[in-house]
Amino acid sequence: MMGPMSTHDVSIAIDPRRFWSTVMRSGQIGPGKAGGLRRLALTDADKEMRDLFVTWCTEAGCTITIDRVGNIFARRPGRDDHLAPVLIGSHLDTQVAGGKYDGIVGVLAGLEVLRTLDERRVATKRGLELVCWTNEEGARFTPPMVASGAFASVFDVDWVLALRDDDGKVFGTELERIGYDGKTDVGGRGIDAYFELHIEQGPILDREAVPVGIVVGGYATRGMHVDVNGETAHAGPTPMDRRRNALVGAAMLAVAVNDVGWKYHATEGKATVARMVAWPNKAGILSEYAQLTCDVRHAEREVADRMWAEVKAAMPECARRANVEMRIAGEWQFGSERFDPGCIRLIREAAEHLNVPHRDILSQAGHDAYYISRIAPTAMIFTPCRDGVSHNEAEHAELDYTVPGVNVLLHAVLARANR
Amino acid sequence: MMGPMSTHDVSIAIDPRRFWSTVMRSGQIGPGKAGGLRRLALTDADKEMRDLFVTWCTEAGCTITIDRVGNIFARRPGRDDHLAPVLIGSHLDTQVAGGKYDGIVGVLAGLEVLRTLDERRVATKRGLELVCWTNEEGARFTPPMVASGAFASVFDVDWVLALRDDDGKVFGTELERIGYDGKTDVGGRGIDAYFELHIEQGPILDREAVPVGIVVGGYATRGMHVDVNGETAHAGPTPMDRRRNALVGAAMLAVAVNDVGWKYHATEGKATVARMVAWPNKAGILSEYAQLTCDVRHAEREVADRMWAEVKAAMPECARRANVEMRIAGEWQFGSERFDPGCIRLIREAAEHLNVPHRDILSQAGHDAYYISRIAPTAMIFTPCRDGVSHNEAEHAELDYTVPGVNVLLHAVLARANR
Repeated sequence: MMGPMSTHDVSIAIDPRRFWSTVMRSGQIGPGKAGGLRRLALTDADKEMRDLFVTWCTEAGCTITIDRVGNIFARRPGRDDHLAPVLIGSHLDTQVAGGKYDGIVGVLAGLEVLRTLDERRVATKRGLELVCWTNEEGARFTPPMVASGAFASVFDVDWVLALRDDDGKVFGTELERIGYDGKTDVGGRGIDAYFELHIEQGPILDREAVPVGIVVGGYATRGMHVDVNGETAHAGPTPMDRRRNALVGAAMLAVAVNDVGWKYHATEGKATVARMVAWPNKAGILSEYAQLTCDVRHAEREVADRMWAEVKAAMPECARRANVEMRIAGEWQFGSERFDPGCIRLIREAAEHLNVPHRDILSQAGHDAYYISRIAPTAMIFTPCRDGVSHNEAEHAELDYTVPGVNVLLHAVLARANR
Repeated sequence: MMGPMSTHDVSIAIDPRRFWSTVMRSGQIGPGKAGGLRRLALTDADKEMRDLFVTWCTEAGCTITIDRVGNIFARRPGRDDHLAPVLIGSHLDTQVAGGKYDGIVGVLAGLEVLRTLDERRVATKRGLELVCWTNEEGARFTPPMVASGAFASVFDVDWVLALRDDDGKVFGTELERIGYDGKTDVGGRGIDAYFELHIEQGPILDREAVPVGIVVGGYATRGMHVDVNGETAHAGPTPMDRRRNALVGAAMLAVAVNDVGWKYHATEGKATVARMVAWPNKAGILSEYAQLTCDVRHAEREVADRMWAEVKAAMPECARRANVEMRIAGEWQFGSERFDPGCIRLIREAAEHLNVPHRDILSQAGHDAYYISRIAPTAMIFTPCRDGVSHNEAEHAELDYTVPGVNVLLHAVLARANR
């Protein structure tokens, strides 16, 4: 049978030990809680990891370019460099209490693909580019995936550069500080396709002992920051009916958001209050300001929209009860995208040629792939992680369960790049 | 008629302009929001104010001693220094968004009393000591009034020195940094009486146009920190029934505390959630830890105890609903004290001799006087503040409404010191 795989040598395979040694080396940079990582975007640890990544890519024969939001592109030329390249990518930043695999295995799987091709002197028709997206997690600069979003023109570059972390530090200044304030324009160029490998961050593959998930799309996610404005006053003499404690308003909304999640729990809906800050937030005084960051997620776009409407409907009621003002200070959505049937087919065919057990799956997390899917044919490969745990130092992936996915990535990318 | 006032010259009066110039000068140190102050304990601004205060006291002929928790005592000798001294005091630190009068007018009223006596060469039988208590507000190091509490043996000195602010900075280290880590033991010596003048921080005197409130006691206040422990996990794939989001548990408790306040609103009860922190408290991740600081206040001790029991009873229910653990990480109470009838009588007699309109009043705020009342006869004088606003940059006091209280303080102190 003449399938797409017949255009290249299906016996090519990555070097598992070499691949895993890069994952383990990365796991030493930016140690977090025991066993995990704390490598927030644009910190010294992020710079150290980026420097090492650039060295590795350069050694594999790639040319490095860095764009204005710090995305790093390692390019391997094709036979015809007039053709748009195939991109492979993910992220190297982590959560505050993150693990060693989330995002990282995707970038380093891409590196292993490039190293394998380099070693075997395999040429492709189209160029390949491995990309490390900046601040995917959104743990330091919220919202998440701002740099892939900027690449896909979802966010304005200057808006991204002006983002502040909770200590007031500015994205652009921090980018410059670590030396990754590149000069290349963000996006605005042709991309033939984008492939991203990622740990599942859910329990399905691990439970079913299936090493490859073919991600057909994502849970619809809607998120926002809500500003709550009240008034400072002394906690002692101020009567309850004259209080405008922003902290109480935010807490009421937090409970309401959580209630919406439970209401849709039966169909695997989720609603999350992930962040809440207040000011002055001190004993003895009512807070005049609070901000809450929340989101809802559901496999069905329409249900997510309904959940989101319910969260928003709770705002005026909470504001009235706490005698404060509430307004949406920023809103985002992702995950409603469905991935490209052509790219999905290439992944499925690669898995079948390699005899790798696989299943279709939906992603419940956010990924750079969502935004890139708006400007280029995109698909994702999931690999298992133990019990589905992530964003936790206990996050764990096994080499043997990860390698099949990396080989699937290699062959899907090869097939696409020779198209 | 021979009243107690006849033992000294009732024509002695403070210099209003000199007094107010010190209040205005203080109002320039540690500017906060427009018109207010942000002079948190043990900051550079606190040091600047302390240095100026020490200079003023030294110029008024006082000897300075500083104890191990940074309390400053300015001593004016008496005719018989074997007798326990009469103390006058309050605090010079402010809230994050504080005003120019809270605490400050009390300390500077005491300074004006000493300056007046110095100028008139009035000797007293007992020595007088003017004290500036450290960190009364508790805005930086919670709970409030730790240094007067340590003086009264309510808190252990080493425990106070080990307190940390929300940035992790240590009380003792910060005290040393600003040069106020004194060598004198904290408390443990005889005090004849303690007088504190303070703005009311409530609307009663302003509304009734009465310049002097004779504080007979305080609202009973019970406060605590509650630690909430959950687990970090990814906000995307983690189902609602496997979540242990500490932030949600804390928010539920915050709402429950506020509800208790409303339940007792008719009898002027209050319940306050003043502070809530969480970790990691970032987009995309559930928080494994949160801490909530709350208190209840009521004029009647028994009712305050009932409110407090209801707040505590809400904890297990909130913990169960959010699937987290909650425990009390620190608890305090004050304000149930009733002030000393003898000291109250001296204040009332001074007001009557001076023809100053006055009324009895309860304090709804915390004051260093509460802790000192446990070791020495104590009373307080309230002066009006506009609309009862405090802990806000709009806090405002009028000189003409404040001076009568300072003269009452002068004569009550004189009467006591000559006893």
